[in-house]
Amino acid sequence: MPTPHLPRLGHALRTLLHKRRHAALGTLDAAGAPFVSMVPFAIDAAAGRLVLHISGLAAHTGHMAAEPRVSLLVTAADAAGQPVHDLARVTLQALAHTPAPGAADWASARAAYLARFPEATPMTELPDFRFVTLQITGARQVAGFGAARSVPADELASILAA
Amino acid sequence: MPTPHLPRLGHALRTLLHKRRHAALGTLDAAGAPFVSMVPFAIDAAAGRLVLHISGLAAHTGHMAAEPRVSLLVTAADAAGQPVHDLARVTLQALAHTPAPGAADWASARAAYLARFPEATPMTELPDFRFVTLQITGARQVAGFGAARSVPADELASILAA
Repeated sequence: MPTPHLPRLGHALRTLLHKRRHAALGTLDAAGAPFVSMVPFAIDAAAGRLVLHISGLAAHTGHMAAEPRVSLLVTAADAAGQPVHDLARVTLQALAHTPAPGAADWASARAAYLARFPEATPMTELPDFRFVTLQITGARQVAGFGAARSVPADELASILAA
Repeated sequence: MPTPHLPRLGHALRTLLHKRRHAALGTLDAAGAPFVSMVPFAIDAAAGRLVLHISGLAAHTGHMAAEPRVSLLVTAADAAGQPVHDLARVTLQALAHTPAPGAADWASARAAYLARFPEATPMTELPDFRFVTLQITGARQVAGFGAARSVPADELASILAA
């Protein structure tokens, strides 16, 4: 597949999402307060969604079952001695879905996740773990100090499908 | 001051909070959905609080003015080729306060922030930036796979004061 045309910030966003392997997931707790936890994530290019694999025992799992609106922050790696204020990052707004085990979207999510994290295979055999897919509804990219933008939906779709 | 006694996980938490310079801040947007953004943070040991320095133009600033309950995730640096599932991290629940410029808590917050980020001095002279302090109300630490705990309040206070 030819690389789709992307503006400069689009290239930076694609690199960020495809290179970084973990994100900060924001959910709502039972009291309606925000709660942020670390999640490894994969990209299911066929579905154009992100994929998480989470424990039924984790707080964020119950939060998403009650309120599917979530937010995901992916931040570039920082380097010792370098300023952190300009770190490239993106905030994704998303809706969480839990595909039924064995369904086509579950199989697609599982394949994408294990392609990125083959070491997680034993965890996928634990009964209390499940895949969750994230349908992105908006994105706010910060590429440096003063360089922030909302990412157009078609550009984001192109990045997730690449 | 002598180093206070801390259990093994307490040492790991102190290292995490004192070495990492940025966090993922979870706020509530106007629609009541979670929103996660990157924030550099400092520790005001005298006040036992975390300190942010944020722009009046940023989304999280408006969110915190309307709803002071926030969540902050601090994650250890990942290394290429290493598993990310076990990354050490802590989720802090907190209440955001905006000290009045010139007040004692503002001066303490400013000093702590500029001690960690001297390069941010020019930003503190911009009229639309402000300091926000975070009063921690709870903490959930994950020190590795299956090693999670709620952090006792007295232990957390000791870590922030160190």
